[in-house]
Amino acid sequence: MLTVKAYAAPSATEPLVPATIERRDVGPSDVLIAIRYAGICHSDIHTVRGDWGPITYPQVVGHEIVGEVVEVGSSVTKHAVGDRVGVGCMVNSCRECENCLAGMENYCLKGNTQTYAAVDRDGTITQGGYSTHVVVDEDFVLSVPEAIPYDAVAPLLCAGITTYSPLAHWKAGPGTRVAVVGLGGLGHMAVKIAAAMGAEVTVLSRTLDKHDDAIAFGAADHYATADEATFATLANRFDLIVNTVSAPLPLDRYLRLLRLDGTMVNVGAPPEPMPLHVFTLFGNRRSFAGSSIGSIAETQEMLDFCAAHGIAPETELIDAAQINDAYERVLSSDVRYRFVIDTATL
Amino acid sequence: MLTVKAYAAPSATEPLVPATIERRDVGPSDVLIAIRYAGICHSDIHTVRGDWGPITYPQVVGHEIVGEVVEVGSSVTKHAVGDRVGVGCMVNSCRECENCLAGMENYCLKGNTQTYAAVDRDGTITQGGYSTHVVVDEDFVLSVPEAIPYDAVAPLLCAGITTYSPLAHWKAGPGTRVAVVGLGGLGHMAVKIAAAMGAEVTVLSRTLDKHDDAIAFGAADHYATADEATFATLANRFDLIVNTVSAPLPLDRYLRLLRLDGTMVNVGAPPEPMPLHVFTLFGNRRSFAGSSIGSIAETQEMLDFCAAHGIAPETELIDAAQINDAYERVLSSDVRYRFVIDTATL
Repeated sequence: MLTVKAYAAPSATEPLVPATIERRDVGPSDVLIAIRYAGICHSDIHTVRGDWGPITYPQVVGHEIVGEVVEVGSSVTKHAVGDRVGVGCMVNSCRECENCLAGMENYCLKGNTQTYAAVDRDGTITQGGYSTHVVVDEDFVLSVPEAIPYDAVAPLLCAGITTYSPLAHWKAGPGTRVAVVGLGGLGHMAVKIAAAMGAEVTVLSRTLDKHDDAIAFGAADHYATADEATFATLANRFDLIVNTVSAPLPLDRYLRLLRLDGTMVNVGAPPEPMPLHVFTLFGNRRSFAGSSIGSIAETQEMLDFCAAHGIAPETELIDAAQINDAYERVLSSDVRYRFVIDTATL
Repeated sequence: MLTVKAYAAPSATEPLVPATIERRDVGPSDVLIAIRYAGICHSDIHTVRGDWGPITYPQVVGHEIVGEVVEVGSSVTKHAVGDRVGVGCMVNSCRECENCLAGMENYCLKGNTQTYAAVDRDGTITQGGYSTHVVVDEDFVLSVPEAIPYDAVAPLLCAGITTYSPLAHWKAGPGTRVAVVGLGGLGHMAVKIAAAMGAEVTVLSRTLDKHDDAIAFGAADHYATADEATFATLANRFDLIVNTVSAPLPLDRYLRLLRLDGTMVNVGAPPEPMPLHVFTLFGNRRSFAGSSIGSIAETQEMLDFCAAHGIAPETELIDAAQINDAYERVLSSDVRYRFVIDTATL
């Protein structure tokens, strides 16, 4: 066992504090990673505060992880000491169900093993990336291209793949019109990636406060959803709407913005049910769908795509001591667009 | 103008009665059809009773129409006197919007002209198929293969195309598993068509009352939705669920029956909004969609498919005097599976 430094939540209601945690010994197929940077995702906050159900404390979160390989197990072939690597939202899966066998372990029918707050195969609770080291099976470790700035690449492991996957699956590209709802951590990556894929991108957000950013990220235009006229102006317009907002939206209004065979896909995760009218879906043969992160192969594809297209998240680098302040700023949407922790300060 | 016999609703609350109506003179692109058979669709009842909004009376309904061409306009090229032809749910569209230009006039952005209770281009209200004759633009007239029994073919023009279109669009075929929810007029056609396409078909209905029929129509199995165990047994099973039920269903329970990239498509039209949880869609990247009849080209394709595969609706032939009784039997689900009016009795 390896005792390593981390920043942990002691309970659902207390601030995160410095802590030490144990990492398992490096097994034959494991990689030991010295973490260099870890992104802060809104999911981290939901999890430590128990918003998505009770968890065991203390808990270390963080599923946007980059660093260097410092040790490999005897059977590891995919990574070598010194490689720049990443870990995202999952660290294992059943490897037996039809989805795993199809290379879609993000949709593992038994539930993939999440990077934190999940029961690992050895019965321990997984601990995330706000830490100096992590041990992960090589099959769930990504190769991180050095062309992407090291201190900015971490958010691609969640915000990047979560938006890349639906954009790729629903074929955003030249000749397609894509709307991105919400311009936060996920939304700003969706805009950059969709624009790089060649789609015409429209940002839909409550106000036009971030208009200059939207255009700089590659959007062709930007409409305020607080303005009633937006929904009439944009009716029947989009091939794909990627909704990154985790609060309930009036679905029928957004669905009516889809043209023939268009799909609105949620990556935002409101826990409440949302009502919709089937008659809205009859028009233009519309679909409403969900998408959950991406497979390991697709995450590698996304990293390589971002490197090739010079895409990186917009980040604000913070020390570990600023994590609790950063949480408050995430909750008040005061972040452009992702906090990244310098783990050297742990 | 041509004065023809029909059976009309005098109001939302009175029984249908014998009537005469006027058909327009045959224009250059028109076809005059001597109607031989007209199917009774549940939509007819909703419409005449004002369930979907107020209409103008007297109103003749019926959008499952077959007969012979008895006169053609000067520029007609697609049909000739003596041809066996059909008319479905629409008799025109704008022909200018992007969907019409793409040959998808069923999704006309200005709204296609419905076969009855719609405002026609000359400002009159369209009158449906419970009548001896109808005048329709040739582009909205289908060629009806004589291989399909004449007295049974009419329901293909609505129930057939409404289920064929989503089955074809979402690629039901060998190696796919399709569930059909509801075994009524639409559902029984969905089973026959999906089975003919080569899919493995499962019927989901409240009880197993129609089990023998389900199997005879080509289903591989049949589960009762009143049985709680059904939803656990069939979890993650289907590539496509075609929901023909027009009452609200608990969507999350049905959506969880979809496997990776599966779609549940509604052709049933509950007017009430239905709630669903995005988390259900995250699993297996599921989609919920709607589908509305089919294009004219696709309707022709469906008719030819049914002729080639020996598929016909199950029908009960009635005289005009039985229409009101038939309506009551449709409302109490006492029909196997579609009433067809012999228009010679009008």
